[in-house]
Amino acid sequence: MCQLLGMNCATPTDITFSFRGFSQRAGITSDHSDGFGIAFFEDKGCRLFIDNQSAVDSPIAEFVRNYPIKSRNVIAHIRKATQGKVTLENSHPFSRELWGRKWIFAHNGDLHDFAPTLSERFTPIGNTDSELAFCYVLDQLVKRFGYVEPKLEQVFEALEEISPQIAEHGTFNFCFSNGQALFSYATTKLHWLVREPPFQHARLIDIDVEVDFSQETCEHDRVAVITTDPLTHNEQWHAFSPGELILFKDGQPILTAKTEVQRLLREQADPSLKRITRADQY
Amino acid sequence: MCQLLGMNCATPTDITFSFRGFSQRAGITSDHSDGFGIAFFEDKGCRLFIDNQSAVDSPIAEFVRNYPIKSRNVIAHIRKATQGKVTLENSHPFSRELWGRKWIFAHNGDLHDFAPTLSERFTPIGNTDSELAFCYVLDQLVKRFGYVEPKLEQVFEALEEISPQIAEHGTFNFCFSNGQALFSYATTKLHWLVREPPFQHARLIDIDVEVDFSQETCEHDRVAVITTDPLTHNEQWHAFSPGELILFKDGQPILTAKTEVQRLLREQADPSLKRITRADQY
Repeated sequence: MCQLLGMNCATPTDITFSFRGFSQRAGITSDHSDGFGIAFFEDKGCRLFIDNQSAVDSPIAEFVRNYPIKSRNVIAHIRKATQGKVTLENSHPFSRELWGRKWIFAHNGDLHDFAPTLSERFTPIGNTDSELAFCYVLDQLVKRFGYVEPKLEQVFEALEEISPQIAEHGTFNFCFSNGQALFSYATTKLHWLVREPPFQHARLIDIDVEVDFSQETCEHDRVAVITTDPLTHNEQWHAFSPGELILFKDGQPILTAKTEVQRLLREQADPSLKRITRADQY
Repeated sequence: MCQLLGMNCATPTDITFSFRGFSQRAGITSDHSDGFGIAFFEDKGCRLFIDNQSAVDSPIAEFVRNYPIKSRNVIAHIRKATQGKVTLENSHPFSRELWGRKWIFAHNGDLHDFAPTLSERFTPIGNTDSELAFCYVLDQLVKRFGYVEPKLEQVFEALEEISPQIAEHGTFNFCFSNGQALFSYATTKLHWLVREPPFQHARLIDIDVEVDFSQETCEHDRVAVITTDPLTHNEQWHAFSPGELILFKDGQPILTAKTEVQRLLREQADPSLKRITRADQY
C-alpha cells in the first residue's frame, strides 16, 4: 500500500510544506519506504521525479523538499510495495501522453484478479496493478472519445463509470491530472481541504514544522490539498465517502459524484464478505 | 540549435564527468542556455530531468552534476531555441511509451517545411520541430511493426529509411534510446568515442577538470560517449559522416550505416542550393 498527496491551485504554488510532512511517512512516522515520486505540471510541461529509494533517504526527495517548484497541479506518492518489485519503473506517479498532454496517475490500494484486455495503445512498463489500472483508464478514455480531446467534465463523467468498475477488484484511491485540473477518487481513504483567504497557521502532524500561510500567500491564492491521511493538526480535513470522485480545478472542488461500488455495497450488506487484503492491513 | 550528449555503457556508469563539461556550454563556454534535460535509464525505468532554465543556472542541473546516477543509457541536451518557446514542454529529451518501454529522443538541428500527418497515436505536447520529428519516428515504427516489439536491428533498419526522409527538411542530428541501446544519427555534426581498458586520463575542454579513468573503472567497463562537439582534449573522437547512423550497445558501436540524404547530395553538387538556416549560423 501507499500514500497519496495531490495539490491543485488557482495560482502556481510550491508544495514544500506539505511534502515535508508527507515524506516523513516514508520511514520515520510510517513505513512507506519502497520508492517515491512527485510530478509538477507547469502548463503543458511536466517535471516528474521518481526514485526507488525512500522519500526519507532519496537525494532526489531531499532536493524536492528544498527546491520550491511552483505548480498548479502536483501529484506525489510514497510506496509500500504490495504488487511489483521495488524498481524505478514501478515507482508512481506514472505518465503517458494523450491528446497532446501528459497525464499523470498515482494509486493507493491493491487490486486483485484485475486483468483487463488492453488495446496496446497504452502498455504497462512495470508490473504493478496500479500502472495497469492507469493504462486501462486511458484506454477507456480513448475508447469513448477517440482522438478528439474531451472537456474536463466529460473526462469526469467517464471516470464516474470507469472507476467503480476497477474498484470491483479492490482498494482504488487515486489522483489523476493532465495539468489543467486534478481528479481524485477514493474507495477507502482520502482526505482533502482548501486553503484560501483568510489564510491561517498550519502545523504538520509528522514533523514539528509550522507555517503562517497569511505571510506566504496573496489574496488570489487558493490551494486544494488531497492526501491519504491529514497532514496538519489544526485544519479541517474532509474525508472522501467510499466511491466519491472529485474534480479539483483552480484550487477548489468543482464537481463531485458518489459512485456506487458494488463490492463495497455487498460488503456493507454482509461484512463477512470483506476480503482481507494487504491493502486493509496497512 | 542545441547540443547533444549520449552515453551507452556495458555496465551502469555515472555521467557526471562528461555532463560537467557539457553543461558549461549552457552559458559559459557557449550560449545553449534555453533549457536543458537529461534522461537516465535503469533497466526499463527512466529518470528524466528537464528544466527551462540553463544547465549553468538550473538547480536541477547542479543536482545532476553532483549526484552520480549510474545508468547504461543516458541522453542529455542543452537547448538554444530556434523553433518553439523556452518552456518546459519544449525542453528535450522527449519521452513516450511504446511496446511497454520508454523511448527517449533529443535532437540537434532545425527542420523546415516539416509537417507530416501523424496518426494521433503520438501527439506533440510542445511546439518544436524536434518533438514533431520524434512523434513521426514513433508513428513510422508502429506503422512498420504494429504492436509487436521488433528487435533492435529491425528498429535500426527502419531508422535507416526514416531518418534521411526527415533530414530532407534540414539539420537532423539525434540520440534515441529505449534503455536497451542507443541510436545516433547525424547530418552535420556529432562525435563519438569508446572508453575501455586500458583506461587513460581525460581532460575536459570546457572546464579545467581531469579524471584518471583507470582509478574509477574496472576491467568490465566500456563506455561509448556521443556528443555534438568533443568534450576532452586528449582522447580520439570520431566524427559521424553526413547521414551516418550508429547503434551503440554495451558501450560500443554494433551497427553502422551511411544513409544517403538527398538534400546533402544536392548541396554537394551545387553549394549555392545550401539554405542559410539558423541551424547553420550557430
